[in-house]
Amino acid sequence: MKVNGTHHRPIWESEGPQGPEVRIIDQTRLPFAFETMALPSEAEAVRAIADMLVRGAPLIGATAAYGLALAMREDPSDANLSAAYDRLFRSRPTAVNLRWAIDDVAARLRPLAPAEREAAAFARARAIAEEDVELCRMIGVHGLPLIEEIAARKGRVNILTHCNAGWLATCDWGTATSPIYQAFDKGLDVHVWVDETRPRNQGGFLTAWELGQHGVPHTVVVDNAGGHLMQRGDVDICFVGTDRTTREGDVCNKIGTYLKALAAKDCSVPFYVCLPSPTIDWTVRDGLSEIPIEERRPEEVTEVQGLGPEGVRTVRVVAPGSPAANPAFDVTPARLVTGLVTERGVAEASEAGLLALYPERKAA
Amino acid sequence: MKVNGTHHRPIWESEGPQGPEVRIIDQTRLPFAFETMALPSEAEAVRAIADMLVRGAPLIGATAAYGLALAMREDPSDANLSAAYDRLFRSRPTAVNLRWAIDDVAARLRPLAPAEREAAAFARARAIAEEDVELCRMIGVHGLPLIEEIAARKGRVNILTHCNAGWLATCDWGTATSPIYQAFDKGLDVHVWVDETRPRNQGGFLTAWELGQHGVPHTVVVDNAGGHLMQRGDVDICFVGTDRTTREGDVCNKIGTYLKALAAKDCSVPFYVCLPSPTIDWTVRDGLSEIPIEERRPEEVTEVQGLGPEGVRTVRVVAPGSPAANPAFDVTPARLVTGLVTERGVAEASEAGLLALYPERKAA
Repeated sequence: MKVNGTHHRPIWESEGPQGPEVRIIDQTRLPFAFETMALPSEAEAVRAIADMLVRGAPLIGATAAYGLALAMREDPSDANLSAAYDRLFRSRPTAVNLRWAIDDVAARLRPLAPAEREAAAFARARAIAEEDVELCRMIGVHGLPLIEEIAARKGRVNILTHCNAGWLATCDWGTATSPIYQAFDKGLDVHVWVDETRPRNQGGFLTAWELGQHGVPHTVVVDNAGGHLMQRGDVDICFVGTDRTTREGDVCNKIGTYLKALAAKDCSVPFYVCLPSPTIDWTVRDGLSEIPIEERRPEEVTEVQGLGPEGVRTVRVVAPGSPAANPAFDVTPARLVTGLVTERGVAEASEAGLLALYPERKAA
Repeated sequence: MKVNGTHHRPIWESEGPQGPEVRIIDQTRLPFAFETMALPSEAEAVRAIADMLVRGAPLIGATAAYGLALAMREDPSDANLSAAYDRLFRSRPTAVNLRWAIDDVAARLRPLAPAEREAAAFARARAIAEEDVELCRMIGVHGLPLIEEIAARKGRVNILTHCNAGWLATCDWGTATSPIYQAFDKGLDVHVWVDETRPRNQGGFLTAWELGQHGVPHTVVVDNAGGHLMQRGDVDICFVGTDRTTREGDVCNKIGTYLKALAAKDCSVPFYVCLPSPTIDWTVRDGLSEIPIEERRPEEVTEVQGLGPEGVRTVRVVAPGSPAANPAFDVTPARLVTGLVTERGVAEASEAGLLALYPERKAA
């Protein structure tokens, strides 16, 4: 989508002296600086994923695929293919399409002669990124009518979103934002309530930045405010993303999603989860009992980065000496989800609903 | 309760050259500095309330009562009594016992000769503070058995609280914290999940500081985390405070309370609201339609104060240029409240429940 009037993607290739050079936006510098950088090696790709220079399930998948390609440029041996796969796999837990992407690339590379692997890996990484753009575009195509229906009924459409399921988290369009961008680009009167999304503030930092750069009207609120806004009738529809959806439609997403889903249910606000099908984990049924939740560093809670008089600084925002806990995701039970917006259409959040769109998964 | 091993209150008198000197803890400096200061004039009392050097409904009430006493020291005329009442009344909206306190003091002063008003006002302000201490102590007496029952069943008791309904918000003990302090002082194994409570971080700043100073085990979490903790069985009971409770048991409290109450209901976790009866607004029935919600400055959302390498600084935590909205309270419907813990006992959150404890309000 647009940055300063120019179209950008969060990962792309440019021509370098050794062949394609992989470039990313350093998302840890947003929203206070817009900086792009090269990923010169597999090690840098691992670091970019682990340190969240890139984040969001689909973008992590594409970056990991490019990471395998960079590893093949460095050493295309079977031993390095295995070792690089392991390093990339361990770079970030939870994200199911990181694994999907590197499984896909590695399976294509193993039968090839080492000399053919670099080019094949780059071609496949590129295709994975392009496929993701198309998946996200189609999510928007299927989500757009949900917005159009409300717009036809009442004019302005107030949408609430949590975290960043925007184009910065994918290869373009975003998931939760794809219907929003398509509605905006079509001229509908949309306004987005952006949850700040503590502890890492991906809403206030990234979603607000994205929407602002593209020109979409939006207002940032603290995570505590969404229930109140829904009670007062100020939210017409919720769109969120997901890191992992189970076969039965439970949704693992950024911590706090569950609270917004509860409020939406209580206030009869439709609550939609937008997802490309590679984020569906068909092997898992019950999200609450089967999905382990990543516990991240407590410093993400006790410290906040922001722009102060001396520049971007990290400040402590918890009483000195008080400990903190930091579960990074939660599980929203399928019963609270109005629908799952996928690249093939909108599914009921249930096994039957998902299988109606993905009949090839029936045997799984 | 204790600070650094010594018992403190958030408002107290010391002897000054002109008679009693009113002193407070400057809560805006907490948790990074513990500073006390005198309130030398009614104007300073108004500023202390408006700028939230003192906050919390009961403490605001006591401070306003002392503010009227300071006004009488400056000028005990009828005209100044009216003018000071108006200035204090306007210093902070929403807080129902600010009005209760100054109504009470003013009604006692009006029949008196001006020369008698200063001493009478100080005596009444002092009594209001002492009455609040006793109200809060009794809330703890009635809330304690709820903790004891869980402790008897399972040992450690995990309690979740939102915002600061601690001793810093009252004249001692706190409301939501009173049962907790009494359980801790009695030797029960309690642990408190402290919601950070954006945007003003009263949980991470004040509740965490209070509990830490008194030695109560606690862990700070972002506001998004409480639902997840309840889903996983890590919360046994919730205690929150309230700024205003309606005749029918709806609870107006810090923004985000409603979301935690929804999660508690969904996860079958008991959700108790602790309140001294002066915060019950007997004239209001339906919280959602009848209570106006204070909309505070957007800078409270876009900026955060914290301790950085250069000292305490305010940093921007929202994308530059993005607007923010800041509703400060929400309303939790009575149907989500397990019980109201008052100084007279635990009431069902309903008109019948409250009237059983406060039969003198039946006619109102």
